[in-house]
Amino acid sequence: MTNKDEFIDLSHGSGGLASNELINSLFLKHFDNDFLDQGNDFASTEVTAGRLIISTDSHVVTPLFFPGGDIGSLSVHGTINDIAMSGGTPLYLTAAFIIEEGFSLGKLERIVISMAEASRKAGIPIIAGDTKVVERGKADGVFITTTGIGTVSKVVNISGERAKVHDSIIISGTIGDHGVAVMSSRQGLSFETDIQSDSAALHELVHEMITLVPNIHCLRDPTRGGVAATLNELAKQSNVGMLLNESAIPVRPAVAGACELLGLDPLNIANEGKLICICGPADAEMLVEKMRQHPLGKDAAIIGEVIEDSEHQVQMKTTFGGTRLVDWLSSEQLPRIC
Amino acid sequence: MTNKDEFIDLSHGSGGLASNELINSLFLKHFDNDFLDQGNDFASTEVTAGRLIISTDSHVVTPLFFPGGDIGSLSVHGTINDIAMSGGTPLYLTAAFIIEEGFSLGKLERIVISMAEASRKAGIPIIAGDTKVVERGKADGVFITTTGIGTVSKVVNISGERAKVHDSIIISGTIGDHGVAVMSSRQGLSFETDIQSDSAALHELVHEMITLVPNIHCLRDPTRGGVAATLNELAKQSNVGMLLNESAIPVRPAVAGACELLGLDPLNIANEGKLICICGPADAEMLVEKMRQHPLGKDAAIIGEVIEDSEHQVQMKTTFGGTRLVDWLSSEQLPRIC
Repeated sequence: MTNKDEFIDLSHGSGGLASNELINSLFLKHFDNDFLDQGNDFASTEVTAGRLIISTDSHVVTPLFFPGGDIGSLSVHGTINDIAMSGGTPLYLTAAFIIEEGFSLGKLERIVISMAEASRKAGIPIIAGDTKVVERGKADGVFITTTGIGTVSKVVNISGERAKVHDSIIISGTIGDHGVAVMSSRQGLSFETDIQSDSAALHELVHEMITLVPNIHCLRDPTRGGVAATLNELAKQSNVGMLLNESAIPVRPAVAGACELLGLDPLNIANEGKLICICGPADAEMLVEKMRQHPLGKDAAIIGEVIEDSEHQVQMKTTFGGTRLVDWLSSEQLPRIC
Repeated sequence: MTNKDEFIDLSHGSGGLASNELINSLFLKHFDNDFLDQGNDFASTEVTAGRLIISTDSHVVTPLFFPGGDIGSLSVHGTINDIAMSGGTPLYLTAAFIIEEGFSLGKLERIVISMAEASRKAGIPIIAGDTKVVERGKADGVFITTTGIGTVSKVVNISGERAKVHDSIIISGTIGDHGVAVMSSRQGLSFETDIQSDSAALHELVHEMITLVPNIHCLRDPTRGGVAATLNELAKQSNVGMLLNESAIPVRPAVAGACELLGLDPLNIANEGKLICICGPADAEMLVEKMRQHPLGKDAAIIGEVIEDSEHQVQMKTTFGGTRLVDWLSSEQLPRIC
C-alpha cells in the first residue's frame, strides 16, 4: 500500500488526498474491475430487459474474524444469497465501509482481500463503493454494507407468500454452524469447537435447483433468528402452519453439544450458507437428490411439511415423540452474529 | 408504533419478533410501497434494457439533525445525486440502518419520516432495507447506507475523464452551505448562522440540463472535500488542468464569514445540493441560463475553464489579481460532514 500509516485516521474519510490514496491502494487494487476503474461516483453497466432483483444488508459481526470466514467474505456471501433466494442470478455488488479511526490498515486489507476472493470465486464483481471514517469509539472496527443486483427469469416466481398446504420443507444442510463458530471465537466464552462458519454463496446451488424445478414456491436463507424465525416469517406470509420433524433436521454433533452447553436451540441460530426451500410434495424428493450432488447441499433433507393453521404456528414433532411449538424469540439471543 | 419501548435495544436487531415489529411499525409504515410489502429479503422490479447505474454511500453525519436537514433526508439526496451525476434517471433506493442500542425510537422515527418525505418528493421509492443493532458505545446513534439504481440513455456519455481543454466549468449555486450548516450545529462551536444545508435531490435539474445539452462532458456533486477535491479528481481523471475565477464563485456572505472565522476555505467545504458541470464552451452560456430557471440552479455560474496542464493542477485567479493553487487537503478538516 502506498499509504505508510499503519492505522486508519479521519483523513482517510475526508474525500481528499488520503481518501483517494486509500481507495487506489486498497479497494481498487483488490477489487480490480473495469467498473471501479471508471472512477466515477457511480458504476454503469448494461442490463437486458427483465425483472431486476435488489437487496441490501449491513454487516456488524463481532469478532471480525471467525472460524470459516470474516466480515469481508460474510458481507459478500450474505448479499449474494439474498439475491439468490429470489431464484435469480446475482450480477453485481456494491460495498460501503464505515471504519473506526485507529483501525488497523493491515486488518482492513485482510478483510478487503477476503471480500475480493469471495467475489471472484462467486463470479460477482464489486462495482461501486464508499468509505467513511468515524472517530475512535464511534464504531466497532469496521461495518460493511453490501447491496446486490441481479436478474430473474419471468418463469420463476419465488416469494414468501407462496407456501401451500402439503408442500414439503427442505433444508440444504446442517443448521447452526455459523452462529456457533462466531460464538466460539468470542472472548469470555469457555468452549472451543472445530465448527467452522458455513458462510458460502448459494447462487450456484439455487441455479441447479431452479433448473430442475422452476416451480419452487419459497426460498429463504435462515440467517439471523435461524430456521425458527425464517419459518415463522414464511408461515405468516403464506397464511399456513408448519410441522417439522426434529429427527430429520441435520445438526452437527459439535453444534448440538455447544447449544446444550449454552442453553441455546439450534433452530434459533444463524446460518450463512444454508437455505430453506418450500415446494410441492411431488417435487421434493427429486430436488433433495439434486441438491445432495452439490457440495453446499450434500446434507439436504426434507424436514417437514406445510399444514393448515390459521394461527401460522410452526410446530415440531420431537425425537421424544411429543410436539412442541417452534417460536421466534422476542429477545436477542445472539447479538451481532452477522 | 406498536412497539412501546422508547429506545432501541438489541432485540430490534435479532431477526426475531422485535425486529419484525420494528420493521412493520416503522419502516414499512413510512416507506409504504408495494416492493417492501412483498416481504422478501429482496425487491423485484421490472427494468427496460439499457445502461444501469448503481451507486452506494454510507452516511455518518454528526449531529444527526442540522439546519436544513437530517441524516435521513441527506441519505436519500446523497445517493439520488450520485445516480443523477451519470446523467441518468434514479429509479429506486435501498436503505440499511446500523443503530446503536439505546437510541431513541422517537428520533429514529423522525429520521425515517424525513427519509420517506425526501423519497416521495423525489419520486424515488425505498424498495429494500436492512436493520442491524449494535451495543451501546459501538456506533453513534444511527448510520444509514443508501444504494441507488437508475438507468441512463445511451446517447448520454458523462464521465470524469471527459473534460477537454477550453471546456467551461459551471457550478449550480452557492458553495459551502451544507458544511457550514452542520458545523454551526455542533456543540462547542462558538458561532451561529442562519445558513441551512443545501441538501436536495438534483435529478430534475440534471434532467433539464441533459435535455438541453446531451453532450455534457462531466457532472459531479462536490460533497466531502468540496469543490477543490472534486475538481482535482476530475483534472486527474481527464489529464487536464483547471483555472478558476474566484470572483465568479458564488458564496453566501454568511458562509464566507463563518469560513473566515474558522480559518476554512469554502472550496474545501462539503455541499449536498450542488453540482459541477463541465461542457464545451459553446454550450455553457445556454446551459447556465437554463439552470437558472430551476430553483436548485438559480445561482448557477461559469466559474472557470479547463486548461492544458500535465500536472493536473487546479489554479484560481484570486479577487486580488494573483493566482493560487487550489489543492485538495491531505488531512481531515471537517470529519463526518455527510
